[in-house]
Amino acid sequence: MAAMSARSGLFHVIDTRQFERSMLDRLCRLATRARALARSRDGARRLRELAPDRRAMLYFTQPSTRTFLSFNSACHILGMHTSEIRNPSISSEMKGETFEDSIRTFSSYADVIIMRTPEGGKAARAAELMDSIPRPVPVINAGSGPDQHPTQALLDIYTLERSLEGRGGIDGKTIAMMGDLRRGRTVRSLSYLMKNYRDVRLRFVAPPGLEIKQDILDHLDAHGVAHQSASRLDDVAGELDALYVTRLQSEYGEEEPEPEPAEYASYAIGPEQLRKFPSQAIIMHPLPRGPELSPSIDNDPRVMYWRQERNGMWMRVALLALIFDLADELEASG
Amino acid sequence: MAAMSARSGLFHVIDTRQFERSMLDRLCRLATRARALARSRDGARRLRELAPDRRAMLYFTQPSTRTFLSFNSACHILGMHTSEIRNPSISSEMKGETFEDSIRTFSSYADVIIMRTPEGGKAARAAELMDSIPRPVPVINAGSGPDQHPTQALLDIYTLERSLEGRGGIDGKTIAMMGDLRRGRTVRSLSYLMKNYRDVRLRFVAPPGLEIKQDILDHLDAHGVAHQSASRLDDVAGELDALYVTRLQSEYGEEEPEPEPAEYASYAIGPEQLRKFPSQAIIMHPLPRGPELSPSIDNDPRVMYWRQERNGMWMRVALLALIFDLADELEASG
Amino acid sequence: MAAMSARSGLFHVIDTRQFERSMLDRLCRLATRARALARSRDGARRLRELAPDRRAMLYFTQPSTRTFLSFNSACHILGMHTSEIRNPSISSEMKGETFEDSIRTFSSYADVIIMRTPEGGKAARAAELMDSIPRPVPVINAGSGPDQHPTQALLDIYTLERSLEGRGGIDGKTIAMMGDLRRGRTVRSLSYLMKNYRDVRLRFVAPPGLEIKQDILDHLDAHGVAHQSASRLDDVAGELDALYVTRLQSEYGEEEPEPEPAEYASYAIGPEQLRKFPSQAIIMHPLPRGPELSPSIDNDPRVMYWRQERNGMWMRVALLALIFDLADELEASG
Repeated sequence: MAAMSARSGLFHVIDTRQFERSMLDRLCRLATRARALARSRDGARRLRELAPDRRAMLYFTQPSTRTFLSFNSACHILGMHTSEIRNPSISSEMKGETFEDSIRTFSSYADVIIMRTPEGGKAARAAELMDSIPRPVPVINAGSGPDQHPTQALLDIYTLERSLEGRGGIDGKTIAMMGDLRRGRTVRSLSYLMKNYRDVRLRFVAPPGLEIKQDILDHLDAHGVAHQSASRLDDVAGELDALYVTRLQSEYGEEEPEPEPAEYASYAIGPEQLRKFPSQAIIMHPLPRGPELSPSIDNDPRVMYWRQERNGMWMRVALLALIFDLADELEASG
Repeated sequence: MAAMSARSGLFHVIDTRQFERSMLDRLCRLATRARALARSRDGARRLRELAPDRRAMLYFTQPSTRTFLSFNSACHILGMHTSEIRNPSISSEMKGETFEDSIRTFSSYADVIIMRTPEGGKAARAAELMDSIPRPVPVINAGSGPDQHPTQALLDIYTLERSLEGRGGIDGKTIAMMGDLRRGRTVRSLSYLMKNYRDVRLRFVAPPGLEIKQDILDHLDAHGVAHQSASRLDDVAGELDALYVTRLQSEYGEEEPEPEPAEYASYAIGPEQLRKFPSQAIIMHPLPRGPELSPSIDNDPRVMYWRQERNGMWMRVALLALIFDLADELEASG
Repeated sequence: MAAMSARSGLFHVIDTRQFERSMLDRLCRLATRARALARSRDGARRLRELAPDRRAMLYFTQPSTRTFLSFNSACHILGMHTSEIRNPSISSEMKGETFEDSIRTFSSYADVIIMRTPEGGKAARAAELMDSIPRPVPVINAGSGPDQHPTQALLDIYTLERSLEGRGGIDGKTIAMMGDLRRGRTVRSLSYLMKNYRDVRLRFVAPPGLEIKQDILDHLDAHGVAHQSASRLDDVAGELDALYVTRLQSEYGEEEPEPEPAEYASYAIGPEQLRKFPSQAIIMHPLPRGPELSPSIDNDPRVMYWRQERNGMWMRVALLALIFDLADELEASG
C-alpha cells in the first residue's frame, strides 16, 4: 500500500507497511519541530494557526484512553475542533445504519476520520470507501482489532529514535520485544517498520504459546532483518539497546489458552531484571500496563514509557500536518 | 408563532411554521455564503471570527449521529465552543432534577441550547421557560419526538432550492414524499414549509396505514397547496421534479401495526424505479436509510442525499448566524 | 496545606482550607474582572487569548451536570481546549489500569486535570502523584466524594461577597445553613472558609440525625467563628443576612437512616418561610434542588441560586487564571 492513495490522492494511515524510511525520518523531524514550537507561547500560537479550519471526527467504538486523548490533544494543538463518538450505543448504528453509511456521514462533516474498532480491517474498508466517493477525506487507523495500530508503531519509532539519538538512532541496535507477541498488535505493527533501519537485530521473548506469528517472521526474513527468539529475558538482557515490553491482550477474546499467571510472571520486568541491563538500554511499553511492568522502576532513567505517551501526541501532530499537506508550513514555522 | 419571541426578543427555532418565505430565502443565501467562504483558508478564518465568544449546549437525550455532528460542526465553523450531553444517565436528571431546572442551568453556561428529545413538545417548553427568566438564551429544536424537526426541514428546503436552482427553484415544481408519512417528522416539518412556494404540487406515496395525517392535509388545503395521494410510486414517477424518500420510523415505539416488509418493499427505490424518473428529477432522503433506499443508486447524478447531509451543516451555520444577529456580518464578509 | 505545593511549585486546588483571605479576595476580584470583560466582544477576545495554548482534562467519574459544564465553559472562555471522560466504562480503568497510571497519563496530554470522583481523597492522591513526577500538572478537585468540593465553596464565597457587596461583604454577617448538614460536602467546604471573615455568625439548621459533624464545629471553635444550632428555620429567619439551603445527599449511599419525608419537609423553604426573612437576606442553594426548595420563589429578588450557578463559571475562570499564573495578565487586560 502506497502512502498516498492513487485513486483519491489522499494520505490515509492504515498499515505501517506504507511507511518508507524517508517518511519515517520526516515524521520524526516534524514531531520534534512541533514539540519545540509548543514550548513557547508564540510557537504554540503558530501551531494552532496551522489547521484551525479543519475538523476531526474521532470514532472510537473500542474503549481507549490514551490513543483517544493523544489524538484529541494533537488536533487541539493544531487548532482543530473535534467531534467524537466513543459510545457506539448513541450512534446511528443503533438505527441499523451500515458501517459504510456511518463513515460516509462522518466525511460530510469532518476533514479527517480517526477511527478505532474492536474488529480488524475496518479502517481499510473506510479508506476504500473514501477512495470511491466524490468528496473523500483521509482516514487514520487508530487501532483496528487484532491486526494493526500504525500510529502506535510510529510513536514507538519516534521514541526509539529520540532515546537513541546520541548513539546513531535505531540503525545497528539490538531491540527485544517481550510479552504476548502473538496477539499484541503494537508488536506486529512495529516489527513491520524495522526493515527500514540498517542492521537492526530483533529479539523476541515470549511465553510458550504466545510467540510472534510466522507471518511477521517471514516478513522480517524477506527484508533481511536479523531476528532470534529467546525463552528468557535473561538470555538477551545484557546485549540490549532497547526492550519493548507488552501486556497480555485478553480483550480481543480469542479463544486460546492463556498462560498461567505464574508462568507469565517470568516475562515481567522489575528492579531485579533491570540490574542485568546495560546502563544505556531503554525500556518501553505501550501502556496501559499489567503485572509485567513493575511501577517500582518508573523512576529509573532508562524508563521511557511515560515519555513514549507524550511522544505519541507529537507524532500525531506530525501525522496530521503531513495528511493535511501542512508539513512544509510546520517546518518553516518559527 | 413569530420568528422572534415578543417576550424575550430572542429567535427560538421551534416549529417550521414560524418561517416565512423571505426568511427561508435569506437562510438559503446565508448557507451558500458560508459554504463559499469556507472554501478558502481566509474565508474559513472569517467564519471562525463571527462567534468565537459564543458557547453552545448540545442536549441530545435521543440518540442521533448526523444531527449532532452537523450542529457541532456548524458551531465549530463559527468558532464556537460546544458542551454536550448525549447520555442522559450522566446528567443531573439522574438526581431527580426537573427538566426546567436542567434547561435553566444550561442557559447559565451557554449562549444557545440545541436540544433533541424522544418526547414531543420539550423544545417549546424550554423556549417558554427562557421567555420567562431574566437571562434567557435562544433554543433550537433539533428534533422533538414525533412532532417536529425544523432544522431538517430547513436543510431540505435548501437542498431543493440548490438542486433546482437552474430551473427556477422550488416554485412550480412537483415533489413527491414517499414512505412512512404518518410518523416521519421530517415529512411533517417539510410539508408545513410548502405554503411559502408558488404552485408547488405535492404527491404523497405511502403504504396503507402509514398515510400522512389529516392535520397536514388540512394545513395544505388552508394554504392552497395542491396535493394528491398515490398508492404507487410508478403512478407519479414520470412527472416528478423531486422525490423525498423516508424510512420506517419504528423508534418512537407507537403501538400501531407495521406494514409487512414485503408490502413495504414496493415503497422502496432502486435502479429499476429510477429508470422511470425524469433525467433532472432529484432524489432526497433524510438518512439514515433503511431497505427503502438501495445503495446501488448512490452514484446516480440525481441522488442528492449525501449533499443533503452537508447542506444541513451549512444551513445550521446560517441559522446560528441569524440567531446571534450575525447575518449582516456574514453577508458582508469577504 | 499551602496554596502552592512546595515540591512541585504547582498550585493544586484540593481542600478549601488552603485558601487565605487575601487569596479569596483576589479570586473574587478576578472573577468580577473576567465577568466584566466577557460583556464586550473585544473583552471576550482578550479572555480567549489568555490560555489558548492550554488543554484541560475533565475526569468526571461521578455524574455531574453543572460542575462539569461550568468548568468546561470556564476553560472555553479562556480559549482552552478540553478533553473529557465522563463515563468510566470507556476508560483504560476497564483494562485494569491503576488510578495512578490513569492520572499520570492525563498529565501527559493536558495542562491541568480537573477531577470529580464518588470516593473521597482521590484528588489529593492525584496531586501527591503529580508532586513526585518530572512533568507534573496542577490538579483541581471538582468534588471528591463526601469530603470536599472546594470550587463550590469558592463560588459560594463569591456569591455571598457579590450579593452583600453594598453592605460590607461577608464580614459581620449572620449566615444560616440548612438541610442535610451531615453529608453535604458543600456545607463542609464552605464552613472551613468562614474563619477568613470577621465577626461572622453561623446558624446550622438540620433535621435530627443530619446535624453538622463535630469536626467542623471544632474547626470553627478553634478559629473563633461564632456558631449556633437551631432545630427550626423560624428560630433564626428574622436575623439572617443569608440562608444557604442544601439537599438530601442520598447518592453517596451511606447506610444511615434517612429522615422521613414529612419530617424533612420542615427544613424546606417556600413563599411562606420567605415572608419571615429580612428584605435584604439572600437565599442560596448549590443545586440541583430537591423538595426543600420551592420553584415558586424563583422570582423573588432575594433568590441568588441561579446567579450562583453563573458565578461558579466566573470563579472557575479566575481559578484557572491563577493556576496558570495568568492572574496579573487578566487584571491588566482591557
